[in-house]
Amino acid sequence: MSIRDNVRKMKEVSPVVASLDVRIRDAALKAVAASLTSRKEEIFAANREDLARADADGIADSVRKRLRFDEHKLSDCLAGIDSLLALEDPAGRITLKRELDEGLVLERVTVPIGVIGIIFEARPDALVQISCLCIKSGNCAVLKGGKETASTNKVLFELIRDAACSAGIPEGSLLQASAHSEIDELLECDDCVDLLIPRGSNAFVRYIMDHTKIPVMGHSDGICHTYVDEYADQEMAIPILIDAKTQYTAACNATETLLVHRAIARSFLPKAAAALADSGVRLRGTAEAAAILEEADAPAPGTTAAISRDDVMEEGDFRREYLDLILSVKLVGSVEEAAAHINRFGSHHTDCIITDNDEAAERFMTLVDSAGVYRNCSTRFADGFRYGFGAEVGISTGKLHARGPVGLEGLMTYKYRLYGHGQIVGDYASGKASFHFRTLS
Amino acid sequence: MSIRDNVRKMKEVSPVVASLDVRIRDAALKAVAASLTSRKEEIFAANREDLARADADGIADSVRKRLRFDEHKLSDCLAGIDSLLALEDPAGRITLKRELDEGLVLERVTVPIGVIGIIFEARPDALVQISCLCIKSGNCAVLKGGKETASTNKVLFELIRDAACSAGIPEGSLLQASAHSEIDELLECDDCVDLLIPRGSNAFVRYIMDHTKIPVMGHSDGICHTYVDEYADQEMAIPILIDAKTQYTAACNATETLLVHRAIARSFLPKAAAALADSGVRLRGTAEAAAILEEADAPAPGTTAAISRDDVMEEGDFRREYLDLILSVKLVGSVEEAAAHINRFGSHHTDCIITDNDEAAERFMTLVDSAGVYRNCSTRFADGFRYGFGAEVGISTGKLHARGPVGLEGLMTYKYRLYGHGQIVGDYASGKASFHFRTLS
Repeated sequence: MSIRDNVRKMKEVSPVVASLDVRIRDAALKAVAASLTSRKEEIFAANREDLARADADGIADSVRKRLRFDEHKLSDCLAGIDSLLALEDPAGRITLKRELDEGLVLERVTVPIGVIGIIFEARPDALVQISCLCIKSGNCAVLKGGKETASTNKVLFELIRDAACSAGIPEGSLLQASAHSEIDELLECDDCVDLLIPRGSNAFVRYIMDHTKIPVMGHSDGICHTYVDEYADQEMAIPILIDAKTQYTAACNATETLLVHRAIARSFLPKAAAALADSGVRLRGTAEAAAILEEADAPAPGTTAAISRDDVMEEGDFRREYLDLILSVKLVGSVEEAAAHINRFGSHHTDCIITDNDEAAERFMTLVDSAGVYRNCSTRFADGFRYGFGAEVGISTGKLHARGPVGLEGLMTYKYRLYGHGQIVGDYASGKASFHFRTLS
Repeated sequence: MSIRDNVRKMKEVSPVVASLDVRIRDAALKAVAASLTSRKEEIFAANREDLARADADGIADSVRKRLRFDEHKLSDCLAGIDSLLALEDPAGRITLKRELDEGLVLERVTVPIGVIGIIFEARPDALVQISCLCIKSGNCAVLKGGKETASTNKVLFELIRDAACSAGIPEGSLLQASAHSEIDELLECDDCVDLLIPRGSNAFVRYIMDHTKIPVMGHSDGICHTYVDEYADQEMAIPILIDAKTQYTAACNATETLLVHRAIARSFLPKAAAALADSGVRLRGTAEAAAILEEADAPAPGTTAAISRDDVMEEGDFRREYLDLILSVKLVGSVEEAAAHINRFGSHHTDCIITDNDEAAERFMTLVDSAGVYRNCSTRFADGFRYGFGAEVGISTGKLHARGPVGLEGLMTYKYRLYGHGQIVGDYASGKASFHFRTLS
């Protein structure tokens, strides 16, 4: 059966899935956990196949790390399921209850979005995490993982689907797409799929956004900034900056640009550059930043980290996501200028100010138009786990629906329920009846 | 200056608008109300120009009603502003506050979306309502109204902009587009406009959705259903149905399809058809529905309202929005079948069950995947005013972000603020530090 046929069936079954009691959804999660444990050798064997194939293809060590599914990853997955079990049911929450008139009661209640398509990178643990988020939230899911983990994904998906069904989740509410060509087929299903969540490279996410009418949630770029204000604690700023740049360079929440207030540039920049150089970070930056480092180097040439001639940047260059040990540097004259640079060249992901001045911090956090605005900590904190969401399906840089790390709440929508006793609008239009809008607890 | 240049400037000023204290935003609303009152003769004179042009063009009476801006419409607008003034500030609400670890505090706070483009029909009161919603919510707005009210819109827009600026809203945060060609220009501004809200005909909304990368909120179709269950109070059902179909046929929340449970079709349908015929409604329907009416007519031919041969419907026909005194009729065998029909052929707008059975009602309201699910009242209640939102910018049939009538809340997004004291992710990754996730009040 084609993806389209399967997704159409999924759309029909989705209201039933949405109406399942949370006890069934939680039982399904427990069944998944039990099955992951009892069938772990089968999963590890499949994963060894993927790893052998990867070795034959000569893939990079960093990618290999993501592909691996071992005891350690399994225990992370099981811990993730435990934390989902501990979370309150996101469905059926009444977020508004209002008596419009005598015997005419309006309720707004949270409900699952319905059918969600998730296309993710080659990480078997992502498959487990995402399916479990969908099960807990009462959503149906079409999953497409990276081809490098095809063998592991196949075992994991079948195990999760079978465990979920055995607990009472209807057949056809979880689906795996395996061929790459099925992605394009899925993009066409705008009458059946309510939301697409693509994860992966910028180019890939951009491709998805440009080739479907289905709403897309996610981020293409992660151009995050750390701004060291004139009132910064410079001793605190340096380890934050090193962490934000180097703790995991391939992450979307790694800092790509350092902004420094001119008033402290001469004292701060040489120290920061030295520490960054020690961590293997190459600096790029404006001619102004380069000149300051050159000046600092003058008394004892070659001792201070510098910005090489080729790394002097023009304004347009600041729209670069390195995902590598490279950092852009620019000086600004005020919080407002820092915020304007970030709003213009950033990707509205996560941006931080280092300052001891409360007013500067509030100004920055108000003016910067990003999903996350931080003070005195690393941009790397932007993550569903670190926010205490239990798990995340991704991070959104869009401003509609969900913004920032997206956990269970981002997989929900709501509906209005109106309970009447024969009320008609004509009576309110004619003045025979009138609304009194009383909030009910 | 082109729309693009203006919108780019607006994008730059939007964080400032978003950070304005609610006292300034409320003062702007009061200034708008005062100016509307003191300059009303000027508005009425401009409106007479529009009406004279409309008369010369021989427009329909129903359209003329919408164009008119008189004392009555003015007082509605002023009442709308009063109710907006009475509403709590939608910005700056903290919806989550959590200590991730000692001295590392996460807050989620509501903020305006930013720059909103609204393209609306020829109704001067809509311009007032929409601009005031944007002012109250701290958003910037590009407004494009119908050309039939160009003269009235011009006076109204300038008056609103000047009043708002005099109260402290920055220049350039409200903009009017007047030429139709400017719509296409606006659709290209996906780097500056955060949200588009088109209102108008299905074809128009569809055109907007298909020609922009900017997120669009709205509805193209309004195919609403009233389902008369086997346990319906038939006496109650008929006036509800008449109201839902006829109280304002051009509205998106008017019922277009009547579903009747087979068990009561023979007793209910002939009575309903007679009442509908008395209200001027023409019936279309399945062969099965037509046969029941024909049978009822048999004892005294010509006395019962019938479905003519040309009005017998095939399945695919049910995806029709009449916006007229025409109603589709179909019989179903269960609540589940009614819900399946609605989910398949409806537009996920607003659908109602008429029943005295609690279980059937809950089943219907759970299974129907629409923004509004009603029991025992008219679908015409789906409206921001009637929900007590004070005003609405439109009704959304999408499931992401805002669903159903959209008032102030739908014009807001949120950002995460994280306050630290030098925390870095490396310490949490290495186990040197750990999260404790404590919810703060």
